[in-house]
Amino acid sequence: MKSRLEAYFDRLFPIPRSLTGNGVRDSLRILGEVIDLDIKEIPTGTQVLDWTIPKEWNVREAYITTPGGKRIADFKTNNLHLVGYSIPFEGKLSFEDLRKHIITRPDYPEAIPYAASYYAERWGFCLSHNEFQQLPQEGLYQVKIDATLADGSMTVGEAVLKGSSEYEVLFTSYVCHPSMANNELSGPLAIAFLYEEIKRMPNRRLTYRFFLGPETIGAIYYLSKHGDRFKKYLEAGVVVTCCGDRGNFTFKRTREESYLNRLVPHLLHHKVGKNHGVKEFVPMGSDERQYGSPGFNLPVGSLSRTMHGKYKEYHTSKDDKSVIDFGALEETVQLLADLVRSLELEGKYINLNPKGEPQLGRRGLYPSLMSDLNRERNLEHILYLLNYADSKNDLLSIASRMEEPILAFLDPINSLIKAGLLRKDFARIHGT
Amino acid sequence: MKSRLEAYFDRLFPIPRSLTGNGVRDSLRILGEVIDLDIKEIPTGTQVLDWTIPKEWNVREAYITTPGGKRIADFKTNNLHLVGYSIPFEGKLSFEDLRKHIITRPDYPEAIPYAASYYAERWGFCLSHNEFQQLPQEGLYQVKIDATLADGSMTVGEAVLKGSSEYEVLFTSYVCHPSMANNELSGPLAIAFLYEEIKRMPNRRLTYRFFLGPETIGAIYYLSKHGDRFKKYLEAGVVVTCCGDRGNFTFKRTREESYLNRLVPHLLHHKVGKNHGVKEFVPMGSDERQYGSPGFNLPVGSLSRTMHGKYKEYHTSKDDKSVIDFGALEETVQLLADLVRSLELEGKYINLNPKGEPQLGRRGLYPSLMSDLNRERNLEHILYLLNYADSKNDLLSIASRMEEPILAFLDPINSLIKAGLLRKDFARIHGT
Amino acid sequence: MKSRLEAYFDRLFPIPRSLTGNGVRDSLRILGEVIDLDIKEIPTGTQVLDWTIPKEWNVREAYITTPGGKRIADFKTNNLHLVGYSIPFEGKLSFEDLRKHIITRPDYPEAIPYAASYYAERWGFCLSHNEFQQLPQEGLYQVKIDATLADGSMTVGEAVLKGSSEYEVLFTSYVCHPSMANNELSGPLAIAFLYEEIKRMPNRRLTYRFFLGPETIGAIYYLSKHGDRFKKYLEAGVVVTCCGDRGNFTFKRTREESYLNRLVPHLLHHKVGKNHGVKEFVPMGSDERQYGSPGFNLPVGSLSRTMHGKYKEYHTSKDDKSVIDFGALEETVQLLADLVRSLELEGKYINLNPKGEPQLGRRGLYPSLMSDLNRERNLEHILYLLNYADSKNDLLSIASRMEEPILAFLDPINSLIKAGLLRKDFARIHGT
Repeated sequence: MKSRLEAYFDRLFPIPRSLTGNGVRDSLRILGEVIDLDIKEIPTGTQVLDWTIPKEWNVREAYITTPGGKRIADFKTNNLHLVGYSIPFEGKLSFEDLRKHIITRPDYPEAIPYAASYYAERWGFCLSHNEFQQLPQEGLYQVKIDATLADGSMTVGEAVLKGSSEYEVLFTSYVCHPSMANNELSGPLAIAFLYEEIKRMPNRRLTYRFFLGPETIGAIYYLSKHGDRFKKYLEAGVVVTCCGDRGNFTFKRTREESYLNRLVPHLLHHKVGKNHGVKEFVPMGSDERQYGSPGFNLPVGSLSRTMHGKYKEYHTSKDDKSVIDFGALEETVQLLADLVRSLELEGKYINLNPKGEPQLGRRGLYPSLMSDLNRERNLEHILYLLNYADSKNDLLSIASRMEEPILAFLDPINSLIKAGLLRKDFARIHGT
Repeated sequence: MKSRLEAYFDRLFPIPRSLTGNGVRDSLRILGEVIDLDIKEIPTGTQVLDWTIPKEWNVREAYITTPGGKRIADFKTNNLHLVGYSIPFEGKLSFEDLRKHIITRPDYPEAIPYAASYYAERWGFCLSHNEFQQLPQEGLYQVKIDATLADGSMTVGEAVLKGSSEYEVLFTSYVCHPSMANNELSGPLAIAFLYEEIKRMPNRRLTYRFFLGPETIGAIYYLSKHGDRFKKYLEAGVVVTCCGDRGNFTFKRTREESYLNRLVPHLLHHKVGKNHGVKEFVPMGSDERQYGSPGFNLPVGSLSRTMHGKYKEYHTSKDDKSVIDFGALEETVQLLADLVRSLELEGKYINLNPKGEPQLGRRGLYPSLMSDLNRERNLEHILYLLNYADSKNDLLSIASRMEEPILAFLDPINSLIKAGLLRKDFARIHGT
Repeated sequence: MKSRLEAYFDRLFPIPRSLTGNGVRDSLRILGEVIDLDIKEIPTGTQVLDWTIPKEWNVREAYITTPGGKRIADFKTNNLHLVGYSIPFEGKLSFEDLRKHIITRPDYPEAIPYAASYYAERWGFCLSHNEFQQLPQEGLYQVKIDATLADGSMTVGEAVLKGSSEYEVLFTSYVCHPSMANNELSGPLAIAFLYEEIKRMPNRRLTYRFFLGPETIGAIYYLSKHGDRFKKYLEAGVVVTCCGDRGNFTFKRTREESYLNRLVPHLLHHKVGKNHGVKEFVPMGSDERQYGSPGFNLPVGSLSRTMHGKYKEYHTSKDDKSVIDFGALEETVQLLADLVRSLELEGKYINLNPKGEPQLGRRGLYPSLMSDLNRERNLEHILYLLNYADSKNDLLSIASRMEEPILAFLDPINSLIKAGLLRKDFARIHGT
């Protein structure tokens, strides 16, 4: 039976998405069944930071007719055939003139490449190199692009789960890619299902913010609205992308030192051992480079399985459902949920009896028969907590020192708090 | 011929020791022939930090008589047979009832295990698993434990060698283990003989403090008396334990950065090359976890050869004289004496002619004939001292930079001081 | 055809140089044809820091006549034969007495060793061990040293290329070595030709200072004049020595952290990959130990190819022209010129649009057709500059982060400055 993840994937995959347009609206509406999205329309021409919201683009139909009368490169068959943001065009061209408007991948001849031209007006088609090579070079080609590129709006969706403090965590991905699977339906799907997980967690201290919009200009817009507040209150943010394939996890670190840079490798280490990668921040890639621009410098990293550009099918028609493993995508959701649980458990823990060890035996926290054979595992967690709960170490550093997962401290913490030996203070997590 | 170390070992080994009792008193009195111990009695019920001094335990006799009339598990034969702090008991039991009071080591069947139950009242016997397996399962066993567990006192011993400054160094080990050799007669013996070495050193600047008491509660008591002063004045402390076997040295670092954490690996590196181990502080192990509790956070590490728990015979009757190498134990004493000599030599050295090199030639400190063949080895020490004696570097960092043992700087320092080119300032060592 | 470097080498090699004397004067005059040297005479007896300028030494002739009447160890044949600063002497000696004045290298029997005795009055000769072993042991030897060791002066040369700021860079080598090639004609030659390169660079911000004098006492003199100003204004200094052989480059780091310690390994990494060495500062070696004495502590490192003492011919007559590769020596000059170009390009760059990325597309700095196939290489440099130009990172750290050579940022910087997106602030380089 299809999982819910797969069912949503199947509904979303065929929709033509781009920076703007009805495909984005439809996609956000469907995702909105899972995540309670507040959908916003930002009018063409709105200034957002250094940028301007572009015209809205919608396609009715687009294709080429060969001299022999065959319809090829049909947008209806595969929406990658049309270069994104192609201007309307109708006319006849020789092969020589047409080829200037054709993009192929000679290095990957069976795949239709993905291309777009958002900020310069042009038109073009993408074909597999194999198909392109069989085109007749004589005669006239008929091109038809029935599209509108006109004032309208850019559509984005946001959801918020309020916590008891003003501190926030951001999860974001983008919805501007046409029919490609891992890049990028995996990210929006992971975020929608993560929303459900977090909503179920009781007594949340942090506020969780979820944002889905087009790449780059979406993040620019979101930063124009929330950037200055994020500088004060954002504890962590994750750009979630290319996270549904069968590859190992890859975490791209935030621009400067951050709690997230310590937490994610810790979680990955305990979840998958050495089978994961950690990459330095570089100002290339996806929206983390906007969140990490020097004027904001936010603690936003990026979580992927196989990173964009590191798998063959990336940015082609071959990035389809066969690339996705829905179990792996679910594991991504669970990793992010553990990240949230860890952020909620984090805090400054203070040993209330810091001079020498407290006598644990009379509190039932120490084995009464001294013998190496029956030491309880929890005792070590307790001794680590007592020793390092000195207001200088956060929980993650205590857990890492012991080489134990941070979430394994939940029970020992509760025992010590109940015994009156430990106190939890909240504090800013990022920057500790 | 027996060394003095071995002679004292032989006298101390058979004595039954525990947290409290006459065995501890006898042991401290014998050690007191070497180290000038001030012996103190702390009454049962005294509050020390979060703990209470327990009742005193003394055993007259303890054994089991089999249904066939054979006396086994006799405390007189091996004092490990009785679980430490067993309450008095006399009665007849079936094998089924008796076995709940028997501890064996099926994984090490020829050894009698060591066990104690200080803080919960029970009784029990320890047997080799081999012996246990041959016990008849029919008939009644007669158990006799003629012991007293009553108000009395805990016995500890302290010695002090005063220096010219208020800064202190602590050496400590524990005397609560019954007849086991490496863990723990090696530590008390090393400390007693180290006392003799230090006493012979002239013009000591530091005060040396030596403490022998039971593990954990002894350290808790000592910290209740001296802990707050140690926070101000303790330069370094070493828990000495399991230090008489044939294994390589192991140093367990202090909880936070400390001079000791730099000095001991330096000394070991120059004494034994790579044949030593350095372990991070963890809040498990012996009394270093009390000295390193967050309310005190003292620069106290631990020196062993093979660490507790890392050799097969640990905490069994097989940890006997055959485990000990008295030459190795003497080497431990000498390493600690070098540690003391290094602490005494340490200081801030100041180059009194810091602009350019002073003209060493006219002071007889530079070879007059420039030729690579007759450079003197001391010249390098002198140039390192002059260059780095700038009040920012302590002597250990200068020695480590040059990859030379710190004690090799004694003569070059004296030459430079005599030539008026160097001054020694004293300063707090720990925390530099 | 001979290169200019080789032509100057050939003129300079035969000249007898020492701490002082006419050989130094002649050498500086010849080098002065390339580098505009201001030649200074410092009188005997002048106090410079802890030192005194020694007497001037000049040799007319010096040799030994064997009992058989053969003239050997003739200063005219090879000026290494006479121990530097030998006092005048004329007399007849037995072999037994003579041998106390003879220095050989039994480990390198075909080479005449180099020796000097600047600060203790004695005389002596250096012979190859092979020649020494063939000397007859009977009969009288006639020794003639017609030299003057008398009040006079020490000769040094300095050149300055003024820049627009008060900050300075120092290049120095020494001219006190008699006829040896790599150590040390390569250094003075590299510095003279580097002077020409820098003089051609337009709009220099930094002032470049070049100093050639005898080793040790020359540096002491120079520090006595400029040391305190260098403490304020010196950005970097390089002792250039043993830099004309065929070996890989070796950089000896400055005493403390410095910009130079980061820059030179960066330049070497991008010029020669892993084929170079970086050595820690040690207070042995050449004049860097004077510049790095604790009272000055200047950011002066040392650049060599094969370090002094690390090649067999070092400090013997075998360190002759055959050791030199003039292409390698020229490469040394070019490396130092790149170092200067880098220092000039360095600065604090400030992104003038730091919130989110600026829209590069409308400024012609971003490819308009989004497709992985036609990304321009310069785009990455631009994105790195924008992201890290936040007043916290200097250019070198941005370049190193990207693993690109610092000089590759010249064009991207100019593009961004022209687009109004970047500003350059000057700041102290050393200590950043």
